[in-house]
Amino acid sequence: MTLLVAGWVALDEIETPFAKVEQSLGGSATCAALAAAQFTDVRLLAAIGEDFPERERSKLEGRGIDLAGLRTVPGGTTSRWGARYHYDMNTRDTLYTHLGVNDGWQPVLPEGWEDSSAAFMAADDPATQRALMGALTAPRATMVDTIKLYIEAEEAGVREAMREASFASVNETEARQLTGVASIAKAARSLVEGGARAALVKLGEYGAVYASEDDYFVAPGYPLEEVVDPTGAGDSFAGAFLGYLDTVPEVTAAEIRRGIIYGSTVASFAVEGFGPNRLLELKRDEVEARYREFRTLTHIEEER
Amino acid sequence: MTLLVAGWVALDEIETPFAKVEQSLGGSATCAALAAAQFTDVRLLAAIGEDFPERERSKLEGRGIDLAGLRTVPGGTTSRWGARYHYDMNTRDTLYTHLGVNDGWQPVLPEGWEDSSAAFMAADDPATQRALMGALTAPRATMVDTIKLYIEAEEAGVREAMREASFASVNETEARQLTGVASIAKAARSLVEGGARAALVKLGEYGAVYASEDDYFVAPGYPLEEVVDPTGAGDSFAGAFLGYLDTVPEVTAAEIRRGIIYGSTVASFAVEGFGPNRLLELKRDEVEARYREFRTLTHIEEER
Repeated sequence: MTLLVAGWVALDEIETPFAKVEQSLGGSATCAALAAAQFTDVRLLAAIGEDFPERERSKLEGRGIDLAGLRTVPGGTTSRWGARYHYDMNTRDTLYTHLGVNDGWQPVLPEGWEDSSAAFMAADDPATQRALMGALTAPRATMVDTIKLYIEAEEAGVREAMREASFASVNETEARQLTGVASIAKAARSLVEGGARAALVKLGEYGAVYASEDDYFVAPGYPLEEVVDPTGAGDSFAGAFLGYLDTVPEVTAAEIRRGIIYGSTVASFAVEGFGPNRLLELKRDEVEARYREFRTLTHIEEER
Repeated sequence: MTLLVAGWVALDEIETPFAKVEQSLGGSATCAALAAAQFTDVRLLAAIGEDFPERERSKLEGRGIDLAGLRTVPGGTTSRWGARYHYDMNTRDTLYTHLGVNDGWQPVLPEGWEDSSAAFMAADDPATQRALMGALTAPRATMVDTIKLYIEAEEAGVREAMREASFASVNETEARQLTGVASIAKAARSLVEGGARAALVKLGEYGAVYASEDDYFVAPGYPLEEVVDPTGAGDSFAGAFLGYLDTVPEVTAAEIRRGIIYGSTVASFAVEGFGPNRLLELKRDEVEARYREFRTLTHIEEER
């Protein structure tokens, strides 16, 4: 079983009320791949520039991620993103986005990767997401993520990608933007009525809501003791969710619910460090221990 | 088993982006009492003015609430509160608070009410809350709620009331205000370390976090399809929580967890109408059906 992760690898500048990092490994695909690597074999498809530090590449290699799809664009510079978080750590200002090598790059699936059993398409041009998903021969589970930028510029394409993927991932704002309804419960159902096979609405520290034609699930957030940096939490969630699903004998509703809890669990680790730093040292037994704790602290005994 | 509810009965003016009501039955004690009346016998202790409409009194009587403690202050006017909700329905501006009869009123327990088996002290001067709780002979479960006003003016008293009650109820902002920590998980634990026997942090539509010395529980919010008016949701939660606990053979950790789900369930109905209007027509079988639905949509099967 092998999970394809396509998206961005970037160098980030992140400032919180408590600390700041620069030239820090980041990007949607980085976080998703590291989260997924807790569970399954991961193939990373992304572009970097000639300036991408060797030590950052080594970090990814060190976690067993297949980097045959990490393409160095000749003469290009790695994408850079800067953001500053507000005091509550839930809202941020994007300071800059330098596309670098991602400006116009068309990812192509490396030979042999068509057999990936699952795929996460991090936020990107929906045409690219669809082309990559279409190149897979028989994926069991695929997920597309998106952001405001693509919803505004390519709404029809975003909707089409959501119809083709097994799961569509959005945050609260994006769910409202796509459906025009304020209620998260209604928005999740509306995405499914609008053609998405299943919608996962991420509520940040408050958990997630999942809707499909035959299931509806709400999960609280793991109670976070300390948030160092929320960047990449959503991608970590997605990576762990799909990584877990890639390992189960059959993708059932019950497994999807467990996958959501695994997603929340790994995301709760991700926010404990800057960018993917905590994920880089995360051990599977830590994930399992927190997953069990999460289950315990949300469990309600059956009625007498 | 009988639950004492002490707090305010008021006439509210509420404006949302979609509708507006004036002179509408409201107040913390009204919502809590109506929510609790789904489960147990309720005694209401509150002050009203001579202007309080008979038809509003009849509504409360019609739900079987004991109004021997609903005192009409001679020459007084009923408290009035006005608020306007923003588009997201999570934030509001208080337009005015006219204390009316609640300005300086000292509630006294009606004779015979000392035997109340549970009590909810809605937000009030902590000295009043403590005096009322102290007048009960052997309550099994008591809860104090508070608001910013009392935390600022009477913080030591608020903390003392929290130590004396079985449960302290706060929202996110109040939890941070009392503990000085941003993390809800840490704040809930900090309240318990600071002397509260148990802390219930209400997260509005996102559910609740519960901490005591020997338990920790997180519950997602019930997925709300339509919010007409969030006013009184917290008091409805508290009333249903204590109302349910008043009926169980023993107040165990498992029952407290069920009580929190009952609290969320009844609060989810409360927000479907202005003020307590939805609660006034709510039937127990609707509560049970939604409670079961809530359990289903948060349930995760045991691991194979």
